[in-house]
Amino acid sequence: MEIRYADRVDSIKPSAIRELLKLTQQPGVISFAGGLPAPESFPIEEMKQVSVKVLEEQGASALQYSTTEGYKPLRELIAKRMNNSGIDIKPDQILITNGSQQGLDFSGKLFINEGDVVICESPSYVGALNAFRAYMPKFVEISMDDEGMIMEDLEKALVENPKAKFIYVVPTFQNPTGRTMSIERRKKLVQLATEYKIPIIEDNPYGELNFEDTDIPPIKHFDTEGIVIYLGTFSKTFCPGLRIGWVAASPEIVRKYVLAKQGADLQVNTMTQIELYKFTEMFDFDAHVERVRNIYKSRRDAMLNTMEKEFPSNIKYTHPNGGMFTWVELPEGIDAADILKKSLEYKVAFVPGSSFYPNGGHENNFRLNYGTMTEDLIVEGIKRLGEVLRAL
Amino acid sequence: MEIRYADRVDSIKPSAIRELLKLTQQPGVISFAGGLPAPESFPIEEMKQVSVKVLEEQGASALQYSTTEGYKPLRELIAKRMNNSGIDIKPDQILITNGSQQGLDFSGKLFINEGDVVICESPSYVGALNAFRAYMPKFVEISMDDEGMIMEDLEKALVENPKAKFIYVVPTFQNPTGRTMSIERRKKLVQLATEYKIPIIEDNPYGELNFEDTDIPPIKHFDTEGIVIYLGTFSKTFCPGLRIGWVAASPEIVRKYVLAKQGADLQVNTMTQIELYKFTEMFDFDAHVERVRNIYKSRRDAMLNTMEKEFPSNIKYTHPNGGMFTWVELPEGIDAADILKKSLEYKVAFVPGSSFYPNGGHENNFRLNYGTMTEDLIVEGIKRLGEVLRAL
Repeated sequence: MEIRYADRVDSIKPSAIRELLKLTQQPGVISFAGGLPAPESFPIEEMKQVSVKVLEEQGASALQYSTTEGYKPLRELIAKRMNNSGIDIKPDQILITNGSQQGLDFSGKLFINEGDVVICESPSYVGALNAFRAYMPKFVEISMDDEGMIMEDLEKALVENPKAKFIYVVPTFQNPTGRTMSIERRKKLVQLATEYKIPIIEDNPYGELNFEDTDIPPIKHFDTEGIVIYLGTFSKTFCPGLRIGWVAASPEIVRKYVLAKQGADLQVNTMTQIELYKFTEMFDFDAHVERVRNIYKSRRDAMLNTMEKEFPSNIKYTHPNGGMFTWVELPEGIDAADILKKSLEYKVAFVPGSSFYPNGGHENNFRLNYGTMTEDLIVEGIKRLGEVLRAL
Repeated sequence: MEIRYADRVDSIKPSAIRELLKLTQQPGVISFAGGLPAPESFPIEEMKQVSVKVLEEQGASALQYSTTEGYKPLRELIAKRMNNSGIDIKPDQILITNGSQQGLDFSGKLFINEGDVVICESPSYVGALNAFRAYMPKFVEISMDDEGMIMEDLEKALVENPKAKFIYVVPTFQNPTGRTMSIERRKKLVQLATEYKIPIIEDNPYGELNFEDTDIPPIKHFDTEGIVIYLGTFSKTFCPGLRIGWVAASPEIVRKYVLAKQGADLQVNTMTQIELYKFTEMFDFDAHVERVRNIYKSRRDAMLNTMEKEFPSNIKYTHPNGGMFTWVELPEGIDAADILKKSLEYKVAFVPGSSFYPNGGHENNFRLNYGTMTEDLIVEGIKRLGEVLRAL
């Protein structure tokens, strides 16, 4: 029988990356493809103690329905941590979500009518593009350089698209490029958004994985008008399998996200929210993040040092100061998908870059994730990839 | 600053019930209002053992990202349990969701264009209505009697609305009425849906909470064309705070739900999925459900027996054979909202019925939940409510 779906179903495509991951998950493949955090960073022993404690102390409420907004002590903790990073936010401006991916879906649901313009970085996070696509927007891409979105191009786009619904950015250690927007541009971005009355969605999963001492305030830090909607997550600093993220925004805006959550799935897993909060009571969360950061820093060093030695000099790549990704640019005319085919023969995988561009093109780029593999495997994998690239 | 939301935001209203719950959660109130499962039924001690075991045996994978479709052994378990209830379904036809509420949201997302017709029971589950409203359908309500939806009225609606997108039903121990659709009507429903080529969404959270020995096969049991989309959940048989439900449908349809899940929030909490499966390995899940069932059966008996004694004879109510709700009909012209105001003075709460009718009206109905309160409190609360009703 033929089923008549809604029109938007034609826009809901399988994630190219999730499909690719199936190919690259063969045994023996050194994969720089996925965005998987390092399992060595997971606090398994601590979580055992936490789980028992939560069930002993408050088992009945941990297993029961709870409020849509989220577990209050966890929202207070998040507000406090955000305050420490320079953002003026109160616990009741926070909604707990199933990872920040759900915040992206709700952003599409709350803002996008069919045909509306969404402005984003070029390239941008493919999971966000897919979440937004379900609401059928038109994407306007803004070019980037090593300091992030180019503000002249953004202003031009705002003039041309005065009814754009929001500007989506991953300003810090961006997925996929690893780039970080400079402080000057952050200020300029907020100024432009305020002037043109277009909200900013600041997606910041990697901000706490900062390898350097320099402090980069989130874009929300510069927001005086409540124009920035901030998406955070514990997936990269703690454990992605627990699916805990959050939305922080002005009281009026966060209220809309709460209503979206109510209709979508009522609330986040109660027990997991309490466990995460209890972890921060029983253990030192900052020390945990520091351990995670050090793991990724060593892996970044292993990858970049080996790329320096093994990659031909006509191949450019970014030097991220945090996060999990570096972005490689091949000479024009070379298709990263062809390189992937070749490198899979050497049992090395990565993600070709074109799916990060909502309007296509840019086949000569690819993304490497240094977060998942151990240093030995990173060195070995990059050596093999260098061999493929040198044979071009 | 004025924010320009999507048009659908005007349709996303706060749940009247969730707002009401805040009022009724004052200390000392005997609440028949919410749909909270009995906390006495939660397996707290068992979950302590399960949590430790899962983290010991497979901690790293429990805390890591996993597939969108869900944890395979859990999908196999669900398929087996569905097979036992007379449904021919394979594990790869199952998607794990954040409670069945998420299956409702995805149903709206996948099927409803603005203005499309959704056919539902009158009254219907308010959480489903709210999930669908975000996609701006028109609701066509089908009257019910004690055997469920009236099939003549349904056929008339199908003739008048040949492009209706789906028929939404809670056929077993319905929320809010406690009614169960008869076997003859189940067969007729599938026959009509097949004839008019309109999918059925069978929402079955309460089916396993059956107090009688008679066996009622799910609607999906009669489905030979893959026209029934089945939504299940562990919220009522296990623990709602864990947010584990599922969608079971034909391979083509379930694939669409998987894509919706991918964009919406990637996957359900990995650890919780493994824990739920592990519980069924370490303990007897059927025996657990039997315990839950007995708790609700005694509470139903306490409520109905007291209503029999205390309610005036001109007040009708349903006699549910399972689930958590009974539905009260006041004489025409009496507004249940006024009765609620009065009964709150006696510290007794319930939910007025009009919000369960998508197109309004029917102010003379209300819903009583016998699932949450202990038997003593049920008897005391119904006595007080009887006093209010007798004073009419």
